[in-house]
This record gives sequence, structure tokens and C-alpha cells, in this order.
Amino acid sequence: MEVAKDSTILSAAISAGIYLNSACGGEGVCGRCKVVLKKGFILDQPSGVLSAQEKSRGWHLACISEVQGDLEVEIPVESRLNLEQSIYSAPEDIELVKLKEEVFEYAPLTKKFYLELPRPSLDDKISDLERLERGILKAARQEVKHIGLANLKSLGELLRDADWSVTVTLGRRNEVIEIILIDAGDTSSRNFGFVFDIGTTTVTGQLVDLNSGKILGTKATYNKQAAFGSDVITRIIYAKESEGLETLHQAVTGDMNEMIKELTVESSVDLNDVTCISCAGNTTMIHLLLRVDPTYIRREPYVPTLNFVPVLRASEAELRINPRGLLACLPGVASYVGADVTAGVLACGIDKSVDLSMLIDIGTNGEVVLGNREFLIACAASAGPAFEGSGVSCGMRAAKGAIQKVKIDPRDYKVSCNVIGEGEPIGICGSGYIDLIAEMLRVGLLDKNGKIKEIKHDSVRVGEYGREFVLSGDIVINEADIDNLKRAKAAIYSAASILVKHMGFKFSDIKKIFIAGGFGTYLDMDNAIAIGLLPALEKERFNFVGNSSLAGARQALLAKEAFENAGKIAKKICYFELSVEPGYMDEYMAALFFPHTDLSLFQKVK
Amino acid sequence: MEVAKDSTILSAAISAGIYLNSACGGEGVCGRCKVVLKKGFILDQPSGVLSAQEKSRGWHLACISEVQGDLEVEIPVESRLNLEQSIYSAPEDIELVKLKEEVFEYAPLTKKFYLELPRPSLDDKISDLERLERGILKAARQEVKHIGLANLKSLGELLRDADWSVTVTLGRRNEVIEIILIDAGDTSSRNFGFVFDIGTTTVTGQLVDLNSGKILGTKATYNKQAAFGSDVITRIIYAKESEGLETLHQAVTGDMNEMIKELTVESSVDLNDVTCISCAGNTTMIHLLLRVDPTYIRREPYVPTLNFVPVLRASEAELRINPRGLLACLPGVASYVGADVTAGVLACGIDKSVDLSMLIDIGTNGEVVLGNREFLIACAASAGPAFEGSGVSCGMRAAKGAIQKVKIDPRDYKVSCNVIGEGEPIGICGSGYIDLIAEMLRVGLLDKNGKIKEIKHDSVRVGEYGREFVLSGDIVINEADIDNLKRAKAAIYSAASILVKHMGFKFSDIKKIFIAGGFGTYLDMDNAIAIGLLPALEKERFNFVGNSSLAGARQALLAKEAFENAGKIAKKICYFELSVEPGYMDEYMAALFFPHTDLSLFQKVK
Repeated sequence: MEVAKDSTILSAAISAGIYLNSACGGEGVCGRCKVVLKKGFILDQPSGVLSAQEKSRGWHLACISEVQGDLEVEIPVESRLNLEQSIYSAPEDIELVKLKEEVFEYAPLTKKFYLELPRPSLDDKISDLERLERGILKAARQEVKHIGLANLKSLGELLRDADWSVTVTLGRRNEVIEIILIDAGDTSSRNFGFVFDIGTTTVTGQLVDLNSGKILGTKATYNKQAAFGSDVITRIIYAKESEGLETLHQAVTGDMNEMIKELTVESSVDLNDVTCISCAGNTTMIHLLLRVDPTYIRREPYVPTLNFVPVLRASEAELRINPRGLLACLPGVASYVGADVTAGVLACGIDKSVDLSMLIDIGTNGEVVLGNREFLIACAASAGPAFEGSGVSCGMRAAKGAIQKVKIDPRDYKVSCNVIGEGEPIGICGSGYIDLIAEMLRVGLLDKNGKIKEIKHDSVRVGEYGREFVLSGDIVINEADIDNLKRAKAAIYSAASILVKHMGFKFSDIKKIFIAGGFGTYLDMDNAIAIGLLPALEKERFNFVGNSSLAGARQALLAKEAFENAGKIAKKICYFELSVEPGYMDEYMAALFFPHTDLSLFQKVK
Repeated sequence: MEVAKDSTILSAAISAGIYLNSACGGEGVCGRCKVVLKKGFILDQPSGVLSAQEKSRGWHLACISEVQGDLEVEIPVESRLNLEQSIYSAPEDIELVKLKEEVFEYAPLTKKFYLELPRPSLDDKISDLERLERGILKAARQEVKHIGLANLKSLGELLRDADWSVTVTLGRRNEVIEIILIDAGDTSSRNFGFVFDIGTTTVTGQLVDLNSGKILGTKATYNKQAAFGSDVITRIIYAKESEGLETLHQAVTGDMNEMIKELTVESSVDLNDVTCISCAGNTTMIHLLLRVDPTYIRREPYVPTLNFVPVLRASEAELRINPRGLLACLPGVASYVGADVTAGVLACGIDKSVDLSMLIDIGTNGEVVLGNREFLIACAASAGPAFEGSGVSCGMRAAKGAIQKVKIDPRDYKVSCNVIGEGEPIGICGSGYIDLIAEMLRVGLLDKNGKIKEIKHDSVRVGEYGREFVLSGDIVINEADIDNLKRAKAAIYSAASILVKHMGFKFSDIKKIFIAGGFGTYLDMDNAIAIGLLPALEKERFNFVGNSSLAGARQALLAKEAFENAGKIAKKICYFELSVEPGYMDEYMAALFFPHTDLSLFQKVK
């Protein structure tokens, strides 16, 4: 392929459809986009990231290497973002809070009504549109306020060709009812919506039948924005570059549109019958989805442009459903506590709970909410993508081929794995890593600092990133991986801990802890406690709820009351800024051990 | 120029920017698009319109002549639609009903508010959009329901660059308040709107300062749709042809956009500060403006697709003001009584009048409304475009160069004229024709059948269309012109007459008669009675109101209450179908004399 002179290898690779790791967003700092020059010349910017040895072997950082002429570059597997896995079928999230008629009255964002209108006559000569509106008032008991010109142009012909029997799709847009579509005949049985949770690392989508509330399919994929930085800060910075915002917008909408296409094809749903989307995600993700400049999220006093997003047309965000379909984004709370948290609280019903409850959402941006029906307080912890299988050498999402459960025989270190979809393992997902570290601690392979012990055994060896433990074949965990996982669990645990202390509680005061995250259907709570990710409480207090953000977005799609509730929750949640809390750094440092420096906190697992 | 084989000369001429007369809409029936073949060959469809002599002279009808190869065609002046005159400055309509604060509270369709928002701080961290909405609620006491994504994308930067001082333009869209624009700084003094009356023959536009209600300029032009038929029926038929609807839509929006451009340039108004349009016009014109299929207007039971048009974005109709500006069309009553009638009734205040009143709108579609605050009844009469200066040999609109007043000396038939803008006369406008016929009757040049008497005088001669009277130079009136004018006045008079009878009244019961039409600022009521256009009543009962449709549209633009009133008027007006009324044809035939067969009706002028 040809690229312009002075292009970076990173951008050339993206043009070729190859996504590289780039945690720092192309600043030449993280060292994760290493490539090997095989032929030709590369103009490097100076960087201290590569060792002299690496440089002598022809290694370069793709993000700061500029193309000067013909060349040949090898991209090592470890530098690649595993986007080839691309979209996979995600397990349906465990629904703690089933959407029941008695909980939220069924009132989806869009609804179809079949109308048999009386034919006009010399005695009943109101215009076609007034006739339609009269019919809607009778059938739906709703007064239509908006209707786009697109629906009017051929209305006369449509009504007559359909012999006055039509289906109208009504949508609720910021308390205003509008006509979204008018179809000939009775199409009222075909009305579908999409639900999305846009995570920093993972985008999850779900196709829902709006007549039954039934989930027709769920898929997830890595957020292609990851090629421009693994956390929200680097992406906000990247958005300021020329075309940066547009590129990030296209990356995520590309992911979503692909999922929409695949899920509708699989369920034989016509894209025109998809009339709305409900979307949760952190504040930065929602800004990027809408192509809204996210700059001010990270500038003092940390004010996002949008928390409450008006209901828009999906096409405004270039989402490819029916061109007149609606896009509802759940409301966020603050710069670093977004709609995903609101949706999670909604799904778990914490805002209605008498008992003191906590929601811990384990993601790249870990979020912790504490509260009940009296109060809600939330904070965010930058955990990194390790538990989502990114940034760790053999990591992958909870998809087919992922090791999700691990047991190690203390006698011979033999590993037994449970692989999603059975078959050969191809990587390790979050719950697998939690099990693995817990087991390694249990059998004495790992010390509390996260160092692999010097044990003479075939499965323990020294690799490029320090000592590593071999599970089977190419699948290993090395000390760099363990370090990443340790930092991730420390970030989350310390956030939860400081929040509880700040409010004058102890962990033991919490009656229910909801654990959310893209772990598939499995998470071993004992092991999560054993590695110090979760506080040491009775197992009964924990509820693993899967992707609670997605579940909340679905409730908001299906029930007007749930959507309104999300607004109340977002207004009610008090944002607690960890970084300005004096004790936070100490708390985090203390958690950088397995399970913790203060073992008294983990009596049970001592 | 090159055109496709089998193109008609008519369509080739339009492509070249030359508009031909085509009263029948290209059916080969009206004979008004005659052209002369100078070189080459034309494939004619059979037509009985051309005489053998005309054929032998190389004449063809452009609409049914197909291009087969290279050719040269001459387009005689009389076949051309005088669109070269194009846009002209129209006199401001006489405002009978001034828009006063006490009549309608000033509340324009769009309104700007200047806001000085408090800067965000760590203690006041609501999102940018919520901050803006809070400011709006405080300043405008209105809750915003809609805001397009376009306004959100750079909101963060805009607010900060403007140091939190911005101007928001709020719009009223079907009872819903939306943010139309957000500008940096204080632009509240610059908010403008357009008002249009779209007539079958003439399109009139007006630029209005929305802060003061002041009219900044008024222009009119022939409706370019006239090239596709001179009345609404031929245009409805033409709309069914391939691309027909689009062509008609482009013709009228082209006219409107030119006017918008000229008026804004003349008043140094930035197009971005034009934030709304209010539009009146007959039902067919509104359908064509919006590209809504008008087919069903003319099919039994004569039901239009739209009477009440929701407020749309002007860009949906391809009108070039601010892309987010609004378009409000006034409501119509029925297929042949449109928004122009509603607007006229609104402007004249008939719906609030205790006295029995009548509105006679003299246009291509003549409309008559009878009523008071108790009832309103209206009918439509197809008068043709003669009084608008179209379809008559020397006709023109009431623009610079038009003869608007005529006196004839009974001794020597010498004509004294009053020419608009002074200077040399170039044609005759409606009021000029009314004077001219009245004077010709008075001095004995014309008999009551509309035939020019055989008088030996230089100014009376025989031309191609029978006998003609020469006013000066090339400006003449011939018997074909007189015939057209006679049919036009008969259509209007008989419509008014039958309506009055139908309701059990006599003309003398009517206290106020409002005369509307594009006559400029002058109309001689005595002469209008003398030729039998208007009933013979005391002069004091007549009020010449100019373009009442435009005045009503302006009221609706400037006052929410007026717009709502228009809706009530449209619902209240009862449509009276002339064509099914048994006595109508007799009434019309009786009016085909000057002034009338029954001279007792015109005692005063006997």
C-alpha cells in the first residue's frame, strides 16, 4: 500500500486495517506499538522507551516512526490490538432486575399502532394528515406534535394505496410525541430497538423486540478507538488533533453499525423496522459517539458539555437504523461518572433499595456507587483494561476460546481450565485471570508482591517480560501481566474502600454488593476476594450482574418510567472525586499487594 | 446548446433559461407556446390549435414539438413568459389591521435571548448544556424541549470562547420550544424573518425585523411554475409526470431563494440571522412548496394531504435561510380554499367583526369569504391571471413601468396614463386594465359585450387578435385581452354574488368589503364597479387592503396568538363548492357583460 511521506507507521497500519496497541495515544511513551523494520529506512523521533538492544534488533515505536520511502515492517503479535476477533456473541447479561410490568409499565421509546382509518367522503373531508392524527388520537390517546416532511410527501398516495390501513410508529422525544414512520398495512408486529453499552475498551450491543421486550441477540467487540489510546484521557487529547474527533466518532459508530448489521441479519430483522436505540456509556464515550468536543471533561473544573442528552435522531450520530429512528442516551452524572453508572444503578435498583448497597463496575474505568433510596455517591477509578483482556499478553474478552475458570493442582502445577464454548483455549478472560492469580497464590506460585516464585518446573520460565507461568501451549501469564492486573484490582478496591470510609461506613455495613463487568456469565467471588479485588464479605452479599449498564439502557428503552428514573438517579448521584481525597494514594499503595498490605481486612482468606 | 433527442422545444427552452407561456401545462391545447422553426426539422404531434396559415409560416407548438437533430428556433416575444422582469420591489401592502401590541401580543416564531451565564466552578459543576438551559429558563421562562446535535458539537468551546455570554435563538415548533441557534456574544438585536405569499401567478416576499416587527423590504416575482401551466389544475397534472413535482418545487423555491438573497443583501442582513419564514398560499402552492404530492386535491372527494402543516425546518423545503431556521405554513381550509384565505381573514379581522363582511381576493384563484365573528364561508373562483398582468398581451405586474391609472379623453380618445415609477410605460397592470376598460366603456370605445367599436381613429386598428386600441407606441389592448379580463371579472363577481345569495343575504347587507390583490397601492373602486368586477355599493364600504395574505402571514410570524387564530379561522371557515351549485353557471354567464346583463344591479353606473 501507499501512504504519504512522513506518515507514521501507526497511521499507515490503521489505514491498512491493522490496529496496534497504543495506550498513550501515539505519544511515544507507552512502548506498546513496537514494530520491527525489515527493509528500508524509518525516521524516528527520540524516545527513551526502547532499550539499546531493542533498537539494535531493528525495533521502532510505530507512533513516532515516519515513513520516508519504501519499506517493509513486521508487526509482532503482541503489538496488535486483537481486533481480528472483532465482534463476538456476548452472553446475555444476567438480569437481576427483570423488567416486569409491575416494576416499570411497558412503554418503549417507540411504539407502533395499526390504524384502520375511515375513507374520506364529501361529508368527511378533513385533510389526510388530520385524518391520520385523528386516528392516532383514538388509538394511542396521544397528540402528535412533530412529524417530519419526509413522512408527508407521499402520504396521500400511501394512505390510498394502503386503502387507509396503515401502521404509524410513534416516538417519544423529550416528552414530545412525534410520528417516526408511516407504513402501509399492519406492520405493528415488527418493531425493534438496539441497546448499547459503549465502554472505553468494549462495546456491547443488543437487539430487542420492542413488542415483547425479548432480547434477540447480544454482541460485543473491542472499541476500535483503542487504537488511539487505551483510556479516556488519551482519547480526549487525541480528539483535539485535526480530524481526531471525527476519527474517534467513526471508530465507535463503525463498531456499532457492524453490530447492528450482524444482529439484524442473524435475526432476519429489516433495518427499517429498527426504530430506536438506547445508549449508555461513560461521559467521554457519549461525547465521542455524538461527535461533541470532549475537551472540557478533563479541564478544571471538569465540566462535560453534556450530561443530559436530548433524544436525537440516530442518523444524527450516523447510526444506521431507520433514518428517522431515535437515539436516547442515558444521562450521566459528571465528567468521570457517566451514563453507564446511572444505568447500572437503575438496573440494580439501588435507588429504591432500603438496604445500604454498592455497585462495583469492573471496567477500564472502574466505577463504584454506594447508597440506597436516601443517597447515592459515586467515584471513578482508572483501572485499565486488564480485566477486559486488553493490555495483558494472552488476554481476551469473555468470548469463545477464552479460559474463564482455572484450577491449579498444588502437587504438579497442572492447570485445568474451563474454556468458553469448549474447544482449544486461545486466551484468558477477566474471570480466568482472577481465578489464575488466586490459584497461583494458593499453590504458592506467586508471592504477595505479584512476583512468580523461582520454582524449578517446566511451566515456570523466564520470558521477555520477566518470569512467566505456562498454562498450556502458548498461553502464559507473565509478571508484567500480573502487575497490570494488580494495579487494576488495587484501583478498584481502594476506590470502594475510600468511598465507604468517606461516608463513615465499614464494608460490613453494606448489605448488597452488585458486581458488574464484562465477565461473561462466570465470576468466582471467593477468588475475587482472595486476590483483594473485592472486600472480604459473606458470599451471599454479592450479586454478579454482568453488564448492568446494558441492562439499565434496555430498561430505559422499554419503559418510559425507567428512562425518567435514570434522570432522577443522575441528578441524585453525588460525585466523589478520588484524586483530591487525601487518603486515596495511601489506600491505593496499600492495595498493591495480593490481597492487601493489611491482611486483617481479609481474615477469611488469610 | 445540446439536448437529448425527442426532447420538446418547451423543455429545451426551460433548460436554456427561457420560460414560455404554457397555460395548458404542455398539453398542446392552449396554443400559447408558439415558436418559429428557422432551420432543421421538428417532429410535431398532431394539434388543431395552429391554423394552416400559421403552419405554412413555420409555426409550431413548443410543447409538442420534438427535437430530432440540429435546429434553429425563434421564440416570439408573445410566447415568452415575461420572467426577465423577474423580481421587482413590490409596494408594501396597505395594512388595514396594523399589528398592535393590544391586538396580538408580540411573540414571534423565533426570538433571541442574550444570556450571561455564571462560569462553572468546582461548586457549580452542571454540564454546559444544563447551564445553558438553566440560563434560558431564567431569561425566557421557557423550558427547552428540543435541541439538535448540530448545536451541541462545539457548545463547550463556544461557551468558553464567548466567556459564557451567548445569544440563544428559541423557536416555537408546534407548541414545543427548541433551541435553534447559539451564538457567541450579544446578537439579540439581529433576528429576522421572511413572509411569503405564494400565488399561482405571483410570489411575494417580505423581510421583517423580528425585534421591531418592521418591514425591511418587499419584493414580488412571477411564479416560475407558470411555465408548467397557468392554473393549479394543470400544475397538479404536471406534478404527476416524472420529475414533475420536483421541477415545480424547484421553480417556486428558486423564486423564493432569489428574493431572500436580494432582500437580505439590500438590507445588509446576514442570512444566518434569518431564523424563520411564515408562508401563506393556496393549498396547491403549499403542497408544491413542500414537495408533497398534490394529486388528491383534484380527485373526488377533493381532500388535500395537508391543511394544517406542522412547523418544519426551512431547509426541509430547501429554503436557504439559517439551516436550522423554521418554516411555518399557515393552515388551509380545503382543496381550493387555502392558507391565503385564512391569512386574509386574519389580516382583515373578519373573524372578530360584528358586522357582516366580505373579503374578495382578486388573483388567478379568486377567493371570496363572507362572514363575521359568528360564521365564515368561502368559495374559490378560477379567474385566470389577467388581473395579475399575465395572459394578456401587454400585461405586467404592478411594478416599475406599469400603467396603473388610465384616463381617456372622450373627444379625441387621447389616453393619459399614470406609470408606476414614472418614466416610459412598458405594460399595463391590473388596476390599469380596470381603468382602461371602464374608460373605454365610458367614452364609447367598447360595447357591453367587450367588442371594440368600429371607429375610424388612428388608435383603433385591426391586429392579429381582432380589433385593438392603441394606448401609446406598442402598448395596446385587443379584444382577446378584453375577453380574458371579462371572464376574470365575471368569475369573481358571480362567485361573490352566489355566495351572498346562498346565505340568504343581499350585497347591500354587507357592511365592509375588503378587496385584496396584487394591485400595488392603487385601485379605482368606481371603475371596478363600472366594469362589473365589484358589486355596486357605496364607496365607503370598500377597503382596499393590498396583499392581505402576506399581511396575515406576517401577523402569524410576529404573534403566537395570530398564528393560533389562523388555526381557529381555518377550522371555522366553511367551504362552499361553487361548481356543484345549480345557479352558478347562469350567474357567471350573466356576468360576461360590462358591467352585467342585469343592469338593475348596477343602477349607479347605468
